Amino acid sequence: MHRTKVKVLEGVLDANDTIAQANRADFDRAGVTVVNLMSSPGAGKTTLLETVLGSLEGVRVGVLEGDVQGTQDAERIAAVHTRTGGHVPVAQINTDPGFGGECHLDANMVRSALPSLPLADLDLLVIENVGNLVCPAEFRIGEDVRVMVSSVTEGEDKPFKYPLMFRACELVLVNKIDLLPHLDFDLEEFLANLDDVNPGVEHMLVSAKTGEGLDAWRDWLVRAATREPAAV
Amino acid sequence: MHRTKVKVLEGVLDANDTIAQANRADFDRAGVTVVNLMSSPGAGKTTLLETVLGSLEGVRVGVLEGDVQGTQDAERIAAVHTRTGGHVPVAQINTDPGFGGECHLDANMVRSALPSLPLADLDLLVIENVGNLVCPAEFRIGEDVRVMVSSVTEGEDKPFKYPLMFRACELVLVNKIDLLPHLDFDLEEFLANLDDVNPGVEHMLVSAKTGEGLDAWRDWLVRAATREPAAV
Repeated sequence: MHRTKVKVLEGVLDANDTIAQANRADFDRAGVTVVNLMSSPGAGKTTLLETVLGSLEGVRVGVLEGDVQGTQDAERIAAVHTRTGGHVPVAQINTDPGFGGECHLDANMVRSALPSLPLADLDLLVIENVGNLVCPAEFRIGEDVRVMVSSVTEGEDKPFKYPLMFRACELVLVNKIDLLPHLDFDLEEFLANLDDVNPGVEHMLVSAKTGEGLDAWRDWLVRAATREPAAV
Repeated sequence: MHRTKVKVLEGVLDANDTIAQANRADFDRAGVTVVNLMSSPGAGKTTLLETVLGSLEGVRVGVLEGDVQGTQDAERIAAVHTRTGGHVPVAQINTDPGFGGECHLDANMVRSALPSLPLADLDLLVIENVGNLVCPAEFRIGEDVRVMVSSVTEGEDKPFKYPLMFRACELVLVNKIDLLPHLDFDLEEFLANLDDVNPGVEHMLVSAKTGEGLDAWRDWLVRAATREPAAV
């Protein structure tokens, strides 16, 4: 009887991670930095893109929109004029062919959309995920960095209630700060809670309405796009 | 050779629906009306319960809290005093033993929590689902009615972007209307969008902060609790 030597493979990637790595390789080859932008529904992801994407100095940016249904956000991005008189290339993924509508983007959905985007002509690709504070944080899609938007209307307790999301990201945009005078929202407490679940994570206080903080957000995107992907 | 007659069963319930029906049967036996309360993170579900649960005339109410992690909401409900000087019985489900934290309650999670609640002593059970506009709408948990909270801070387009959720519910609480003067939110447009995806659905304009609309919400809960479950 032969003794067969069985090689045990540890840490084999699941299908999503395998495809995310393939996306990652394609992005690297094209020299594109990829931002995965996540938040609750209505926290302001699209507005925070509309307000800065037309004025990213020297950066060619594209957007991939993820929604259960509809193309409203993609149409808003497509209407943005860049300083050179062009438009922002945008593609839309709708997750609703899944069971009742998938609540997140996964690597395979993103991969299926890549032929719709001119990767070779981009420096930066922003992928706007489905509005949800749970599952999007569980699926890598090939991104370099993860950014989340948390609206001050959502309450101080959110880092504790959705810790995986708040831990997964490298930048937190604290949005709608123009509403602070009208809310019982303790900003110090929120920031302490955030630091508790993701110590030292970078954050910016922003308002798409008043423009506060948008220069910092624009600069962050320009820096992300012009760094070498591996260094992000 | 015997010819075997094969009986084809159509429309067999999946496991979730089977357990939801078992929950339903237990609720009926106990004479409890069950409300499944859903929304985005931070739309105000817990606050809209805190403000009315202590004053539901003649209704014995209990709460089942669903969260990825933490017991903040359950503690807030446990602190509510009823007019008879008692407390509201509350149990907490945490979904985080699942893969990264399940983004919704399912019938089996609810079933596992039932022994923690004094069903026989309740007229009304409110189940506060995980904050998410996608998956909670896909899982029946044995409820009589589904109520959702939509905050005016989230934008007019949400019925089109999360149609399953807006279609699934029998009542929509349009919350945080005290913020309307400070938002670019077109209430008429939102209500038209809502009616488009769920024609004729009942809605209430409420503000947990100013108290506007809370009497109507309280009355609705009392009526739901005092109707025969089958008639709800």
